[in-house]
Amino acid sequence: MSQPIPTPTSAPPDILRCASMELQVTDLAASRRFYVEVLNLVVTQEDESTIYLRSLEEFIHHNLVLRQGPVAAVAAFSFRVRSPQDLDKAVDFYTELGCRVERRPEGFVKGLGDTVRVTDPLGFPYEFFYDVEHVERLTWRYELHTPGALVRLDHFNQVTPDVPRAVGYMESLGFRITEDIQDEQGTTYAAWMRRKPTVHDTAMTGGDGPRMHHVAFATHEKHNILAICDKLGALRLSDRIERGPGRHGVSNAFYLYLRDPDGHRVEVYTQDYYTGDPDNPKVTWDVHDNQRRDWWGNPVVPSWYTDASLVLDLDGQPQPVVARTESSEMAVTIGADGFSYTRHGEAQPEYKLGHQL
Amino acid sequence: MSQPIPTPTSAPPDILRCASMELQVTDLAASRRFYVEVLNLVVTQEDESTIYLRSLEEFIHHNLVLRQGPVAAVAAFSFRVRSPQDLDKAVDFYTELGCRVERRPEGFVKGLGDTVRVTDPLGFPYEFFYDVEHVERLTWRYELHTPGALVRLDHFNQVTPDVPRAVGYMESLGFRITEDIQDEQGTTYAAWMRRKPTVHDTAMTGGDGPRMHHVAFATHEKHNILAICDKLGALRLSDRIERGPGRHGVSNAFYLYLRDPDGHRVEVYTQDYYTGDPDNPKVTWDVHDNQRRDWWGNPVVPSWYTDASLVLDLDGQPQPVVARTESSEMAVTIGADGFSYTRHGEAQPEYKLGHQL
Amino acid sequence: MSQPIPTPTSAPPDILRCASMELQVTDLAASRRFYVEVLNLVVTQEDESTIYLRSLEEFIHHNLVLRQGPVAAVAAFSFRVRSPQDLDKAVDFYTELGCRVERRPEGFVKGLGDTVRVTDPLGFPYEFFYDVEHVERLTWRYELHTPGALVRLDHFNQVTPDVPRAVGYMESLGFRITEDIQDEQGTTYAAWMRRKPTVHDTAMTGGDGPRMHHVAFATHEKHNILAICDKLGALRLSDRIERGPGRHGVSNAFYLYLRDPDGHRVEVYTQDYYTGDPDNPKVTWDVHDNQRRDWWGNPVVPSWYTDASLVLDLDGQPQPVVARTESSEMAVTIGADGFSYTRHGEAQPEYKLGHQL
Amino acid sequence: MSQPIPTPTSAPPDILRCASMELQVTDLAASRRFYVEVLNLVVTQEDESTIYLRSLEEFIHHNLVLRQGPVAAVAAFSFRVRSPQDLDKAVDFYTELGCRVERRPEGFVKGLGDTVRVTDPLGFPYEFFYDVEHVERLTWRYELHTPGALVRLDHFNQVTPDVPRAVGYMESLGFRITEDIQDEQGTTYAAWMRRKPTVHDTAMTGGDGPRMHHVAFATHEKHNILAICDKLGALRLSDRIERGPGRHGVSNAFYLYLRDPDGHRVEVYTQDYYTGDPDNPKVTWDVHDNQRRDWWGNPVVPSWYTDASLVLDLDGQPQPVVARTESSEMAVTIGADGFSYTRHGEAQPEYKLGHQL
Repeated sequence: MSQPIPTPTSAPPDILRCASMELQVTDLAASRRFYVEVLNLVVTQEDESTIYLRSLEEFIHHNLVLRQGPVAAVAAFSFRVRSPQDLDKAVDFYTELGCRVERRPEGFVKGLGDTVRVTDPLGFPYEFFYDVEHVERLTWRYELHTPGALVRLDHFNQVTPDVPRAVGYMESLGFRITEDIQDEQGTTYAAWMRRKPTVHDTAMTGGDGPRMHHVAFATHEKHNILAICDKLGALRLSDRIERGPGRHGVSNAFYLYLRDPDGHRVEVYTQDYYTGDPDNPKVTWDVHDNQRRDWWGNPVVPSWYTDASLVLDLDGQPQPVVARTESSEMAVTIGADGFSYTRHGEAQPEYKLGHQL
Repeated sequence: MSQPIPTPTSAPPDILRCASMELQVTDLAASRRFYVEVLNLVVTQEDESTIYLRSLEEFIHHNLVLRQGPVAAVAAFSFRVRSPQDLDKAVDFYTELGCRVERRPEGFVKGLGDTVRVTDPLGFPYEFFYDVEHVERLTWRYELHTPGALVRLDHFNQVTPDVPRAVGYMESLGFRITEDIQDEQGTTYAAWMRRKPTVHDTAMTGGDGPRMHHVAFATHEKHNILAICDKLGALRLSDRIERGPGRHGVSNAFYLYLRDPDGHRVEVYTQDYYTGDPDNPKVTWDVHDNQRRDWWGNPVVPSWYTDASLVLDLDGQPQPVVARTESSEMAVTIGADGFSYTRHGEAQPEYKLGHQL
Repeated sequence: MSQPIPTPTSAPPDILRCASMELQVTDLAASRRFYVEVLNLVVTQEDESTIYLRSLEEFIHHNLVLRQGPVAAVAAFSFRVRSPQDLDKAVDFYTELGCRVERRPEGFVKGLGDTVRVTDPLGFPYEFFYDVEHVERLTWRYELHTPGALVRLDHFNQVTPDVPRAVGYMESLGFRITEDIQDEQGTTYAAWMRRKPTVHDTAMTGGDGPRMHHVAFATHEKHNILAICDKLGALRLSDRIERGPGRHGVSNAFYLYLRDPDGHRVEVYTQDYYTGDPDNPKVTWDVHDNQRRDWWGNPVVPSWYTDASLVLDLDGQPQPVVARTESSEMAVTIGADGFSYTRHGEAQPEYKLGHQL
Repeated sequence: MSQPIPTPTSAPPDILRCASMELQVTDLAASRRFYVEVLNLVVTQEDESTIYLRSLEEFIHHNLVLRQGPVAAVAAFSFRVRSPQDLDKAVDFYTELGCRVERRPEGFVKGLGDTVRVTDPLGFPYEFFYDVEHVERLTWRYELHTPGALVRLDHFNQVTPDVPRAVGYMESLGFRITEDIQDEQGTTYAAWMRRKPTVHDTAMTGGDGPRMHHVAFATHEKHNILAICDKLGALRLSDRIERGPGRHGVSNAFYLYLRDPDGHRVEVYTQDYYTGDPDNPKVTWDVHDNQRRDWWGNPVVPSWYTDASLVLDLDGQPQPVVARTESSEMAVTIGADGFSYTRHGEAQPEYKLGHQL
């Protein structure tokens, strides 16, 4: 493990929840088709270079910003804080960490007021805001709901080389760990961390980083997720389905992973569990447990382990990617060197193809 | 409105969530059949006079205590607080309000440690605890899940004569209002209030009180609720279904109301929405809007308005019930004096039977 | 019981299934909004006076014809037969019964070829056809499916004064009874009859007739039916919901009854069971069993018993309605004279409101 | 194509539906755990060597017979016919084909009366019966239903080297083709054939045969299938999941493939479509269409193509397996020689792993 990130003496901002992601996309029209016509996110506002989208039960201006740019990358992981004063805390917290911090009273994007953006110690562009334009919450507007209705932004997932180091920093920022994946040597492969009382607002996944693994939207029920698959098939876009649908071991949620026209990964997710008590029991999964990533033991495709999106610095330049030096989850579970099990000590049947992928 | 309840200078305890209800029942064996064999709540512990039950995703000792007693009534509305220190705050808060307060380091029931019970200013027996025995969270134990699996305690609902007075007190206790029902004169008929970021941990319903209107458990999906109805039909217990299933206007949740063998009302509930932001928009419904209680406009049965359970004082004696003096929701919406509408200004069709009930 | 209808010596046509209904409506634009914009039936063809609609999994030209006319009524209950030769059989069968029979090689409506229409011995306008234009089956076109997708025409329901007389005639036409409702005196209140191997292609409901009780479309799953209710609420059209949603006792299907702008009743229906074996066990329900019409014991609204649509003769004139002289199901189960039970011999609780309706 | 099977001059028996399969299993206790404790099929009757199982909506004695034997194999594909006289037709039909035919008035298994068994021209053990013991149809017995309730036997799937030859024979037996998979050269890889009006009572899959590919049971809804997966995960039996869950292209049904303790493949299946009209449009899929087997484009595991169960002759000896000589679907779609597409002419993305499997 690298040098740990020191815990600032400044109190962290009181983060409510993950609230929005800003994605830089290389073909805005293609992205619009995917997010608006296929996934049916709601357009709050748009102009020639930017589209602001929200989920059906959201009352703030947006959960996703698509911005035309030269390279596919993430411009901001955006969190809402409890009060305007928490922005001061964010400035102090990250300044003490030696991070680059930028504050704009008018916001970096439409719909938001006073906003702080930082490049965090892991290299990710984090955004914090409280002031935001309210828009109609479409919860009761069932005439607008589609079979695959996305109702809420649920979480982010970030790729970073050193998971324990990232977890230490996130804990100092006020996050709590709910589940993780480890091996018997104590190597941590991934950790799920939350502010709101769900399994996560973001997860730290071990790999070459900083990169964005995925952004996840919630549906009400499992059939909504299946309906998205059915629609992608009907549109002859089934190749946008990368993995799933399935049931996660970690989080117990029902899931689907899609790839947008730029390759940005989007998860659709439903039905994890309440985690809001301070003594909520942490669940640790064995990296070799074949049901950790998919409760039904279906193999994880290699691209899901290897592909992720670049992230931008505050000048809009892609951050360099640092390689993970610890064991990779893919290497220890699939391929020539790795193994997984359904029942500890027993070999998998041939049709569980992890060893062939 | 009666004299408002003063706001104590003592800070309130930091309440995490509604956590459990203690029900006094007159035939423990009959109650066990209903809650364990029909609703499939999980028995954590039981003896001759008491049964401790939990939902499938719970990790604390219980969400429901059934205790044999001489009269059907509620012995405790129990809330979990964030830390042991919050019990001191609870003592100070209620002492300042002049309430009877009792604290037992060994708890009033099994599974809990240090506990405070009070008779609150509205006459309800409130319980606060932090220390609790952890038990297995059965989230992943699908071999134990039934078609109508209850996964979480969601909320309480209390009947009290003066809703604004109750709301003022609950706000001083740290609750926030998410939705309410009013008329054009400003009379408030009911209010939904939360600590955890759902629509409510408890609601205040206008009526003769203090009484308990219902306790609600959550399922994952709507079909789980329908399965409970199907099973009740198969067991020739369909007369336990009092109202629903249906879609609420308030909360947008899908619901079902049952009556247990003592007449205690149990709701099964799923899919309300996130309310955790401090500026979460409050939704106010017109008491005459026929879709406020049932989004599909199906009539509310009179018993749902009139029946509720007695509550006990700290000596186990039923609290006297004080009549509501303001207009009742039933009177202004159904019967000779009242009316409801689907579209403002238009009469309801004959088969919407509110006027006949 | 009136004089039975004689069984013709001519073989009946080999009926495949109920295939379409022609509804005369008084405001075509209003009906179009209901069936196309709310229920999302698919327009195959339309002109100023007529709209041809089909369900998503249909490959024949239409399942519903809406035709502007002076009075709300049913112009045809249309059945598909196995071969062109079955039309000759239909002519012979009904001619022998003394019925008015009309045959048009070019069809009575668009999309159909050679067609026979009769006024049957019960006074209903029955249509038989084989030749029909094929259109695209939209099964796989998920981009067109809505949350409440209607996939198939399932059945008709007809009101007639003398159910056993109607059943005898329908059996001579090749229908088989799958379920019925009787009392201990042997009075039959309703009977379900099928050609395709579901619970029914049509049902005979005792009451003043000939009238049309409802036409039913199938969805894949129960949530699809709930989604229709949610959408009606969102459109402030919840007063179109007459009864349900609920689970039938008879047929075991999940159901919802709507009323269209003319008051024609439409059922949405899912998941009855296979009945195709010749010795399929008939299920007889006691008319006093409170779970026969709704497995959950929810009361049937009086309008559901009393209201029904007129039917037309072959000249387009409404058929006179003949009163039922036997006991009515409503009278023997609700109201001052009637009773129902959940468990034989036990009274219903107050909130089961049948006795008040 | 080999020599076609001649069409007998004798009329075929009038087959109602696939009704039951007799499986020889090598460890009856292990099979019982799988079919009874995991899949919750209902035991109608059992003794030391044989278990008779049925689905919840069945009223005949059994849909599955498990019989202890020396080798895992299929002893009978059993079809119900319309009348006792159809057994005479079956005898004549297969005698004329030169097949071995055996008739037992007392049946070959319990619950059935007069029965005919044959080794058909393709080498499969087919059984025909009409007389059968009726048992309780558990449709309304919801207290017995589990989250993954299996309600009906839906179909068989047979592996045979020459699909067009098999189709010709099955057409002479009265089956109709509903869907098939072909390539541009006209090679047929599989065909779905029905008697009851669903997509199939059996399918002919090209491969080394005669072998049994799978037997399929239906659920009401998709979540029932997901619940079976969840339960298998909870029991640490996820390695019994071979493929899926997913949406078929062919049939449009939602599916899951399991392997029983002997490797016999069981499908769980829901929601295909009505096919009962004589001019029901046949759907032909391109073998290279990546959505034909899974509408979402998820890869088919090789074992699904290669593994199948032996079938027995009337003496209980395994039939020799004859190799398919035409192109195999696996070879032309995956592996070095084959390809599939989502959109004709475009390559698949990396994470669609067909080319690696």
